[in-house]
Amino acid sequence: MGRVMDLDVVFIGTAGSVPTPRRGLPATLLRRGGDRVLVDCGEGTQRQLIRSVGLVEIDALLITHFHADHVLGLPGLLKTYALGARERPLALHGPRGLERLLGVLAPVIGRLPFELHVSELDAGEQVERDGYRLAAFEVEHRTRALGYALIENERPGRFDERLARELGVTPGPEFGRLQRGETVAGVRPEQVIGAPRPGRTVVLTGDTSPCAMTSAVAHRADLLVHEATFADDAANRARETGHSTALAAGELAAAAEVKLLALTHVSSRYAGGELRDEARGAFAASIVPHDFDRVEIPLPERGEPEHVRARDGRPSPTAEPSPASPG
Amino acid sequence: MGRVMDLDVVFIGTAGSVPTPRRGLPATLLRRGGDRVLVDCGEGTQRQLIRSVGLVEIDALLITHFHADHVLGLPGLLKTYALGARERPLALHGPRGLERLLGVLAPVIGRLPFELHVSELDAGEQVERDGYRLAAFEVEHRTRALGYALIENERPGRFDERLARELGVTPGPEFGRLQRGETVAGVRPEQVIGAPRPGRTVVLTGDTSPCAMTSAVAHRADLLVHEATFADDAANRARETGHSTALAAGELAAAAEVKLLALTHVSSRYAGGELRDEARGAFAASIVPHDFDRVEIPLPERGEPEHVRARDGRPSPTAEPSPASPG
Repeated sequence: MGRVMDLDVVFIGTAGSVPTPRRGLPATLLRRGGDRVLVDCGEGTQRQLIRSVGLVEIDALLITHFHADHVLGLPGLLKTYALGARERPLALHGPRGLERLLGVLAPVIGRLPFELHVSELDAGEQVERDGYRLAAFEVEHRTRALGYALIENERPGRFDERLARELGVTPGPEFGRLQRGETVAGVRPEQVIGAPRPGRTVVLTGDTSPCAMTSAVAHRADLLVHEATFADDAANRARETGHSTALAAGELAAAAEVKLLALTHVSSRYAGGELRDEARGAFAASIVPHDFDRVEIPLPERGEPEHVRARDGRPSPTAEPSPASPG
Repeated sequence: MGRVMDLDVVFIGTAGSVPTPRRGLPATLLRRGGDRVLVDCGEGTQRQLIRSVGLVEIDALLITHFHADHVLGLPGLLKTYALGARERPLALHGPRGLERLLGVLAPVIGRLPFELHVSELDAGEQVERDGYRLAAFEVEHRTRALGYALIENERPGRFDERLARELGVTPGPEFGRLQRGETVAGVRPEQVIGAPRPGRTVVLTGDTSPCAMTSAVAHRADLLVHEATFADDAANRARETGHSTALAAGELAAAAEVKLLALTHVSSRYAGGELRDEARGAFAASIVPHDFDRVEIPLPERGEPEHVRARDGRPSPTAEPSPASPG
């Protein structure tokens, strides 16, 4: 059946537009097995990583759009990787315009000792990775903006060992052949192996108004990370600026039947609790994570997504060691 | 005699090259009366300000050199001022190359609702401000780099009221005329007013090897903020990279007879205490401030510069209120 992959989401920066003493600028880390995927990289992200999970060598960086609060941490993170003599290539994805941004920043970034694979994505395009894919979808902001979904590959169906034994298959190598699709001792795989089971799905909107595409992509997702810059009393301002209210995000999550809704991109005017309460009016399984909180996403048969709070803003129990510090 | 101006230095970010959980990237705030002058603006400076003294509208920003760790906070700070609808002009000074940097960053910064007065400085140039000047001096780094000195104007000499009365001058308006330089009732000002008294001086090196120019500019300064990226066991590395050791900074401070030496730009390999102890071996009045610590600099006749520690990384007692938070 393959090894069970750990999957969690670490909220590295949960503020919108302007940081606050408690919330850093946008960045969200997806961890699946040994893979590390960062979505957005606001100013200060390198330090937020260092303060929480350590300066992990991310494998892929996805940019949702090019507003300053989502990208200004990129040059510093790359420079710090360079100082640490990183050698592993880094995949950088974002909407059209990404190459131009890199061109603008090139004199600031300077030479890197590792390869940066820059690729622009259109809505609907996917990046295949080992055991899952990263799918870009169109959202509605004031500028070209993408949301991203981490979609695990289907898992094989459940193997009914007891039934296989009863039908005369000997435990051991013959079980393996059945599971690889061979007929063994007259027993066909579909007699003892159930339908393929869907993998887990995590959807992140980036900045957006509530939109039908998010709702479609997030249908029955394990976790929807949706922006909620404002509360409902600022619904007009949310509309004008291409953002969402907590209420609208809650309504969307309810319609999409997600398992858990995590609200981010919190305006500096809110502490978070008021947004959470508002969202819960529409969808009970709503949270507003603080920086360095995590959501663990077990396989569906093993439980529900769980909000794991950071302790006093310190690294969570699964924090990773930081590599040797550069000069 | 004029109102006594408060003068202090707030250590906004004290790390070098790479931030740590405890130390942000380089930024130092000078506060004199109502003036706010920021020296360097590493990534995350806007948040470090918000976390300590509040998002003050600085009057002048001095860049020492263009290595990424000293400038990457600039675009975000300007964007955040723009979001807050700042109207007050901002003076931006730095070595030659500053205009080119601003040109590179222009597409990221976008339009600002306030005037940015950009001026490149050569070593030896000064910026006159109300009651003091900011003097640029050449330091020795791997690139063109400036240090800065805040030098207060001379203050009038001490007025001997008792002697003036004994010589027949009537307290009141006649005292004022004497102090403005007029002869009153046959008494000449120089009979009752002492020699002009020097103002206070704060010197900041930015990144540099120990150099004679710093020693000359810092002669008898009230406070020398000197970089100490390394300890003496990494003296070779300091030499190769154009940085200083704590020991060398201490020796320089002793030779320059400064009142207090504050070490910054601490490499992530050090906690700080080892650098402080090393510097004290050469110069007793050495400190290694943590982020948000301050040094208060009273007039010389009122006491010595004092290290005021931040409480648990929270704003110091004189923290200023932050302006209304933008959307």
